[in-house]
Order: sequence, then structure tokens, then C-alpha cells
Amino acid sequence: MAAGAWGGSATSAAKLEELVKEYGKPDASIGDASFSVAKEALHRPCSHTCGESGNCLAFAARDKSGHLEPYRFDRRPVGPDDIRIQITHCGICHSDLHQIRGEWGNSKWPMVPGHEIVGVVTEVGAAVTDFKAGDHAGVGCMVDSCGECEQCKEGDEQYCPSCIFTYNSTAPDGTITQGGYSTHVVVKSSFAVRVAKSLPLDGAAPLLCAGITTYSPLKYFGLDKPGMAIGVVGLGGLGHMVVKWAKAFGCTVTVISTSPSKKGDALERLGAHKFVVSRSEEEMKAAAGTLHGIIDTVAAKHELAPYLPLLKTNGKYVIVGLPPDPFQMHAGVVVTRRLTVAGSMIGSIRETQEMMDFAAEHGITCDIEKIPIEYCNQAMERMEKNDVRYRFVLDIAGSLIAG
Amino acid sequence: MAAGAWGGSATSAAKLEELVKEYGKPDASIGDASFSVAKEALHRPCSHTCGESGNCLAFAARDKSGHLEPYRFDRRPVGPDDIRIQITHCGICHSDLHQIRGEWGNSKWPMVPGHEIVGVVTEVGAAVTDFKAGDHAGVGCMVDSCGECEQCKEGDEQYCPSCIFTYNSTAPDGTITQGGYSTHVVVKSSFAVRVAKSLPLDGAAPLLCAGITTYSPLKYFGLDKPGMAIGVVGLGGLGHMVVKWAKAFGCTVTVISTSPSKKGDALERLGAHKFVVSRSEEEMKAAAGTLHGIIDTVAAKHELAPYLPLLKTNGKYVIVGLPPDPFQMHAGVVVTRRLTVAGSMIGSIRETQEMMDFAAEHGITCDIEKIPIEYCNQAMERMEKNDVRYRFVLDIAGSLIAG
Repeated sequence: MAAGAWGGSATSAAKLEELVKEYGKPDASIGDASFSVAKEALHRPCSHTCGESGNCLAFAARDKSGHLEPYRFDRRPVGPDDIRIQITHCGICHSDLHQIRGEWGNSKWPMVPGHEIVGVVTEVGAAVTDFKAGDHAGVGCMVDSCGECEQCKEGDEQYCPSCIFTYNSTAPDGTITQGGYSTHVVVKSSFAVRVAKSLPLDGAAPLLCAGITTYSPLKYFGLDKPGMAIGVVGLGGLGHMVVKWAKAFGCTVTVISTSPSKKGDALERLGAHKFVVSRSEEEMKAAAGTLHGIIDTVAAKHELAPYLPLLKTNGKYVIVGLPPDPFQMHAGVVVTRRLTVAGSMIGSIRETQEMMDFAAEHGITCDIEKIPIEYCNQAMERMEKNDVRYRFVLDIAGSLIAG
Repeated sequence: MAAGAWGGSATSAAKLEELVKEYGKPDASIGDASFSVAKEALHRPCSHTCGESGNCLAFAARDKSGHLEPYRFDRRPVGPDDIRIQITHCGICHSDLHQIRGEWGNSKWPMVPGHEIVGVVTEVGAAVTDFKAGDHAGVGCMVDSCGECEQCKEGDEQYCPSCIFTYNSTAPDGTITQGGYSTHVVVKSSFAVRVAKSLPLDGAAPLLCAGITTYSPLKYFGLDKPGMAIGVVGLGGLGHMVVKWAKAFGCTVTVISTSPSKKGDALERLGAHKFVVSRSEEEMKAAAGTLHGIIDTVAAKHELAPYLPLLKTNGKYVIVGLPPDPFQMHAGVVVTRRLTVAGSMIGSIRETQEMMDFAAEHGITCDIEKIPIEYCNQAMERMEKNDVRYRFVLDIAGSLIAG
């Protein structure tokens, strides 16, 4: 294994503790937040003081409290088909919060979350031809799949029933996968994507989930034709990317949100063409029948009934969030105007690479708030209140654990 | 107007009554049924005895009882763009029953139902070039549309907000359109389709609604590729046509039904490849993930949850019935396998012509039970109990009203 900035020995637990003590001020980007959370974490039982060893330092949740604290574990050595990526940045996805708290029912702790990973390739396996040391690379929501099923053969490995997700999945060797709130990752090169050096790594990180989750359905469902009118329900980490992609495809974009407070940001900064307050009957009525497609990014409970009338005949409504409660859908609404209601989950590796290249070509990144990893628990709290525009990204390289 | 078999004077009300009295036995195809209903209808107040006049004799509902009885009214003269069709047959669609009873809330009585109309062209307007006297022609669910809206311009006139349906719609001249339970119809030639003489007219009649309602979604949603596995929920007037189209497209067909009693008919007579009893957990489990697409033809209340798992990843579930109650749909189900749930309503005139030509090429007609129009009230009762395989078709030419 090549020696990286964090080689597994340079930063000991004691050194970390010392660094925290010495650390004077929070990063400017996080405003008034202090490092009390990180300090507390470093002093809790069963954290770094429990004698863990390993070549990778990370932040992990230990139980369903979801509290993240330093954690040390071993990544596998680089195999012939693998690459090792020194992680510089990792986005915080809302699903990280669900998972660390065990809200999806299948959580395995300790859990290192994070599936919006970017960094620098530091080592490549003997059989790897598509990456070399020094390249910028990214890892998204999955790190392997069976390669044999219908979905894998069609290049839709995100729908492989044996898909191995980047964290909280059981790998073929029996270990539990661990995510990107960590210093490095070892991954099959076929599940990594190339990131153009013209793209800033911090803003590119969330493309690996928020980006592809919105890019893929726009492409797959043909909602990428110039001149189309595209709507997005919810303006958050995913929603603001719908605006960026659709604009780059030459579409007009309507943001539909419950929060009138987001209007300025949507229209002026993001450049959406229209903003509709979903609680305004008048505005919703005026927008009826205007959209070729809508991407619904909302993860909270809501109904389809108010939004489907915004579609034109033959319009497509694609759900990418996972609200806990079922939608109600009247047959008459979809039958009489040939509407489609569909779902979409992340995207394939091929699509993710295509998206990343498209992003580089068009200079598209996510709007982020960059934070050191020590701030992750506070970030989770703020994310839960939608208090982020639009994605937190952990500055791993600039964090204490980077050593 | 050319003189037809029924010219408006040949059959008087008195003559009709006389014919009914003389009529000895029911048609063989209706078994033990007697003509009591027709006889009663002819003797009820406000039927032919009320002094109605007009060039077209029909059966109409007078009120929300939905009881059909003889009715006389005027069809418009043949205009430059019109053709006159002497109706030989008209299918009975379940929506006719809803409409004559006012169950959709917009019924206008007296109402002559019927939108599965076929017959012989007896007159063509001066500007008509695509039909000539003697041709076989059909009229489906609509007789006009605005021609100006986005849907009309895209050739999807069935979704025109001003679409004029074959009966119970207000025509531009202010009259209420009347359907095919009648001796003739005058229609814009652009809303009629050519029926090949090789197709028997009786079995072709229901193609105008049951046929196109199932043909169109299979084509539009790309569920017409050889080798595809297609499912159909419900084996009735619509469902049995899904089997016929999908087989002709080179697909394998799975019939999913609550009624094990239909298994023999589905597999042996219609030639479906598989039959799944939807109430059998075991059979449904065995069929999970096997279908590229499903056409849901069921008009009664039901849920999507049992059926969506039958789809493969990327599968499409198309609803063509109009159950009164909303479906419940979990986002997770559609998101994690990129499923589509869509609706579809009849089809365009272009598609209807394409379907009719395809039917002629492949010798496809509906399976019907042919009855004289006098039997229509009993037919409605039997249809309500699903006691028909698979469509009643009124033998107008062979009925008393044909004169």
C-alpha cells in the first residue's frame, strides 16, 4: 500500500486528542459552531480510547443514537482490480441520518456512513487500466454487484438484488462495508468514476448521490430535451441539482416548494425560471398543465394529488425520495391524461460517469457548505431541520482525522 | 341523403310493435332469454308511442334507471366532411352502463349509448376522399376534437380537453351526441376508421373501444416487443384483447385473475401462456419479477400492491380501468426497482386505424356474444355480473329496429 497523508500510524488517538485540545476556532464556513461535539466525542467511552486499531480513521455511529465519533478500522489491501482513494471530501446525505439511527431497520453498528466520496487515487491494482495514481476519483452509493443478473447485464447494477452498497452492506468477504466519513477507501475500479480535475472536489462530492439521483431519471425518462418544461418538488440537496441539470439540458425549470422563503434563491441564484408555492391554490392553478415532467425529491410525507395536475398530458412524475407513508393515486387522474408516475433510485456506474463528464463540461457542482468532519453531528441536526443550502460536505482532507 | 335499409320512414312505431308481437323465438345466441324486456320497453310510456319523430331509430335510456327502450331522433344531414354509416353492429361497453345510469355524474337523457360502432358507408360528403359508399367503417369513442390544442396537434385527440365523445357530449352545434345503439350515424370522416372487408363486422365492433384501449398502451409504452413477458390483470372485454394483441406482437402472456374458473379459457382457447390466480399467495410469489409490463383492466376497487411485485425492474404497470377508489402506492416499491405506474385512455384515431389494419392482417377480432338490440337491457344485467365472454355486440342489422 502506498504511503498516504494518513498511513494508519501518523495520527494516533493521543495525537488526535491533542489536536482537538489545541484547535482554537471553528472553520469560517461553519459560523459560530464550536467543536464541543467533536471534543465530547473524543472523550466518550468506546471511541478511540477503546483500543481500536486499523489503517483507516473515520467517524462512526456506535448505536442507534446515531452519534458519530472517531473510529479506527482496517480497509482491505488493494487487490488487482482495486484502487485506493485518499478521501478529500464526502457529502452528507439525508439517508446517512436514517441509517446511523437505524430508521430503515437494517443498520449494523459501528457504522461509518458516507456515499458521496471523492478524493485522489493513491494506488491502483495490477489489473487496473482506467485509473492511475494522482487521478481524481469518486465513489457513490455502491461498491459491487453480482454481475450476473438481468439488471447487471443491462448495466443497471443499482437495481441488482445483490448490490453491495458503500456502507452497511455485507461484502462478499463477510465484512461490513464502511463509507466515506473516513480517510481512505479501497474499491473495485469498475465501481469508481473519474472526476475531471477541472471540477472542484468539494462541490463534486455530492454529485455521487444527490447528483446522479436527479440526473438519471431526467435522462432515463427522456426529460432532457431542450425546450421541455421541468418541475421539481422540493428545493434541497436533490432539488437544487434538478434545477442545474434541467437548465443545462436547455429546459425551463419550475421550482415547486412549500417555502416561499426559497423563492429568491431559486430564481436569482439558481436561475430557475418559475417558482410556485405549493400551498398557494392560485399559483398551483396557474401552473396547471404546464410541465412535461416533475422530479419529486421530497422525503417527508406528502400527497401526489396536488402535483399531478401540473403535468401536461403524457407528463411524467418521477419520485426519487422515500416518504414513509404511501401515496394515494386516483386512476382517473392518470388514465384521462396518460400520466406516468414512476420511481428512480440513484443511477448506474455508466450513468454516473456520464453525469460526471457532463458536470465537468458544463461546470456543474453542488452548492455546498463545507465543514470539518468534527462538525458532523451538528451538521446532522441542522440537516434534519433543512438548515443547509444545499448539501453539507465533509472536508476530510482539512479535518483533524486527516493527520 | 342516400336511401338506406332504414330510411326513417320504412319502419314506423306501429310496424315495430307489430314485429315484436310477431317475433316468436329469441336468437339462438342468447339462449333461454325471452324478449319480454323488449316487449315491455315498447309498451312503456314515453317510448315510441310519445310521438317522437326523426330519421334514426335507436334504443335510449330516458332517465337514471338506465332502462333502454326504443327512441327516435334526427341525425344531421351529411356535410361536406361527413360520412353516413349504416350501423350493422355496436358493442356494449361497461362504460355504457355507467353512463345510462348517470354514475359518472354528467349524463344527459335521453341517451343513446354505444361507441363500438361498425357498419357500411352509405353516403359520403363532397370533400371526403378516404371513404366511398360500400366501404366498411367504424366509429369509436369520439367524433370530434378542437384540432387546435397541443394534444390535437400531436395526434392525441383522445386527450383534447374539448374532445367530443360519441354520445353524451355537446357537439359544436349545441346538440347532444348520440351513440351506436341506433340504425345509422353521421360522422366527420376524419373520426371514422376503415375496416377491412376481411374482418367480420360483428367481432370487429368492440375493437373500437375494448381493442384500442388495450392496443394503444401496449404500443405507446413499448410493451410490444417480441419476447417480452406481458401480464394482464382481469380477463374480460378488455383483458382478453390484451392476450390477443400481446400474442400477435410475439410476447408471452400471463393472465392474472381472481377467478380460477377462467383458467381453461385463458390457456386453452385464448392461448395465454400462464395463468396466475391472484388470490393464491403461492402462485403470485412464483410469478414475482417475471413481467416487463402489465395492463390492468379491472374497473372494480383493487390495490396495486399485490401486482407491482410481478414486474421486472424497469417494468411498467398501465391502468386502463377506472376503479372508483384511489390506489395506495408506496414510494419504496417504485423507487427501488424503477417501476412505472401509468394510465391510458382509448387511443388516437391514427392508432385506431393502425390497430384495425393490424387486426385485419392478423385476423384478430373480439370474442363476442351477438344479440339483437331488443335484448340490451338483459345484456346490461348480465354484463354487470361479468356474465359475458367477452363482449356483447348488438346485431343492429339483424334487429327489429333495422326495419
